[in-house]
Amino acid sequence: MKRRPMVAVVGAGEADADLERVAEEVGAAVARAGADLVCGGLGGVMAAACRGAKGAGGTTVGLLPGRDRAAANAWVDVAIPTGLDEARNVLVVRAADALVAVGGGYGTLSEIAFALKTGTPVVGLRTWDLPGVVAARDAGDAVARALA
Amino acid sequence: MKRRPMVAVVGAGEADADLERVAEEVGAAVARAGADLVCGGLGGVMAAACRGAKGAGGTTVGLLPGRDRAAANAWVDVAIPTGLDEARNVLVVRAADALVAVGGGYGTLSEIAFALKTGTPVVGLRTWDLPGVVAARDAGDAVARALA
Amino acid sequence: MKRRPMVAVVGAGEADADLERVAEEVGAAVARAGADLVCGGLGGVMAAACRGAKGAGGTTVGLLPGRDRAAANAWVDVAIPTGLDEARNVLVVRAADALVAVGGGYGTLSEIAFALKTGTPVVGLRTWDLPGVVAARDAGDAVARALA
Amino acid sequence: MKRRPMVAVVGAGEADADLERVAEEVGAAVARAGADLVCGGLGGVMAAACRGAKGAGGTTVGLLPGRDRAAANAWVDVAIPTGLDEARNVLVVRAADALVAVGGGYGTLSEIAFALKTGTPVVGLRTWDLPGVVAARDAGDAVARALA
Repeated sequence: MKRRPMVAVVGAGEADADLERVAEEVGAAVARAGADLVCGGLGGVMAAACRGAKGAGGTTVGLLPGRDRAAANAWVDVAIPTGLDEARNVLVVRAADALVAVGGGYGTLSEIAFALKTGTPVVGLRTWDLPGVVAARDAGDAVARALA
Repeated sequence: MKRRPMVAVVGAGEADADLERVAEEVGAAVARAGADLVCGGLGGVMAAACRGAKGAGGTTVGLLPGRDRAAANAWVDVAIPTGLDEARNVLVVRAADALVAVGGGYGTLSEIAFALKTGTPVVGLRTWDLPGVVAARDAGDAVARALA
Repeated sequence: MKRRPMVAVVGAGEADADLERVAEEVGAAVARAGADLVCGGLGGVMAAACRGAKGAGGTTVGLLPGRDRAAANAWVDVAIPTGLDEARNVLVVRAADALVAVGGGYGTLSEIAFALKTGTPVVGLRTWDLPGVVAARDAGDAVARALA
Repeated sequence: MKRRPMVAVVGAGEADADLERVAEEVGAAVARAGADLVCGGLGGVMAAACRGAKGAGGTTVGLLPGRDRAAANAWVDVAIPTGLDEARNVLVVRAADALVAVGGGYGTLSEIAFALKTGTPVVGLRTWDLPGVVAARDAGDAVARALA
C-alpha cells in the first residue's frame, strides 16, 4: 500500500475574501494532486482550503487547538481536538510532507519556522518573506512545488 | 452537518491471536455503528481494530508516537505522526467520544486513566478491572455501550 | 558536576488531613535525601509535598496544567505553566528519576501508568494497588525505595 | 509570596564567540535584575546565558527537547527533559514573562513567533528583524526592556 502525500495548508483564522479565494484554490489543487490536506481545522484560510479540497473530492484533516471537535469548520473530515493550544501548530507541521502558507500572521510564522527547522519544504503565497520559503505564482504552482 | 462519533480502540502493540480477533470484531462493530475509529496507529490490537473497521467500510485514524508516517499499520487511513511518544496517548483519548480497551498493558492503562479523569466513557474487554470501566460481554456489546 | 536526583511526588489536588501529612513527610524526606522534588504544582498532595520539601531546605518544581504561573502553590520554587492540561502528567513522569504516589485518583493513576510504561520506578503510599508499584511502609521508606 | 519574574533567553545551540559573549551578558543581567532564567537547556547561546546567570547568582531552568536530563548544559539548575523535541519551544515561551532572543536560526524564529502570537514581549539582539520584536542596544538594555 502506498500512502497519499499529506500537504499542510496554513494561514490565519480570519482572512479577507481575496486570500480565502487563494486558499480555496490551494485546497482544490491539493485534492486534484491526489494528496490529503491537513490544517489547524478552524476558519479563514483553513476553512477555505478545506472547502476547496472537498469541492475537488479530497480528504481533509483538522488538528484543533482546543478540546471541542465541534470547533472544526464544516469541511473537515477528520477533526482531532488536541487540547494543546498553539502547540498543535507543531503537530500540523509534523503531519505534513510539505507546507503551503497562505498569508498569515504570527501563528503561521511559527509553523513556517518549525517546518524550516525540521526540513519540511515550505511554499508561500502572499506570506512571510523568509530565506527557505519558496515563493509561488499561484495556487497550482504552489501545490506543484510543494509536492515536487 | 453532523459529525460522526469517534471511538478510540486501545490496546497493546503486540497481542495474541485471540485478542486480535476480539479487536478486529470491535473495529468492525465501530464501523457498522457509523462511527470513525481512532487509535495509536501501530500493530497488535491497533492493527487488528483498523483491519476490522476497514473490512466493514469504516474510516480509521492513527495518532502515531513517532515522527514517521510509515510506521502506521496498513489499515490506517489518516496517519498523524505526533512525535510526542507516549504523550500521544493523551491525544488518542482527547480525540474520542468513547474508549474501548481490549486487553492491554501499562500504556493502555494510561489511556483508561486519562479517559476516566476527563469524563470520557470507557468500555473494557479482557482489560484492567477498575472502577469506572464498564465490562462488556463481547465486541458488539462493547461498541453499543461505548456509543450509548 | 553531578546533578541531584529528581523525585516526583504525585497525588490528588484535594486530599484529607491524613494524606496531606503523609505527603508533607514524603516531601521532607525527598529534601533530606538530597533530591529535588517535581510535581504538578497545585494543591492537596502536591502542596503538602512541596511544603515538606521547603521545610527541609529542598528545591521544588511545579509543572502546571494551565498557562498561569500564579496557580502554583506557595511552596513551588520553579513554576512552569505548560498549558497542556492533563498531558502535563507525562512531563512530570519524564522529569523524574522515580515516582512516589500518595493516595490519588485517576490523574495519579495515569502518572503511575506512564511511569511503569517507561521504566521509571514507582513507590506507593495508600495508592493504587497495581503490579509494578512498590508498596512502602511510610514516607521515609518510600523515598529510600524510590532512590534505591 | 511574590514569585520572581521568569525571562526566557533563546538562541541557537551553536554560536560564535561574539554571540556567546552577548548571551552570557544577557544571562548575568537577568540574574542581577532578580529574575529566573529559562531556556532550552542545551549549548551555544543557551549554555552561555546559563553560565552568565549562574556567575551572577541566578537560577536557571532548562526545558530539554529529549528525554535525557544529562543533555543539559552544566549551568542548568533545574533540568526538565520534556521528550517533545521542538515542541518544547512552545513550553519555553509559555514559561516566560518575556523573551530575549540572541541571534538564532529557525528554532529561535519559532519561539519568537509563538511569543508574539501569545502576547509575550520579545526583545532581540542580532536576531530576526520582525514587526513586534523590540531591538535592544546591548544585554543590559535587552533585559531592562524585557522586564519593563
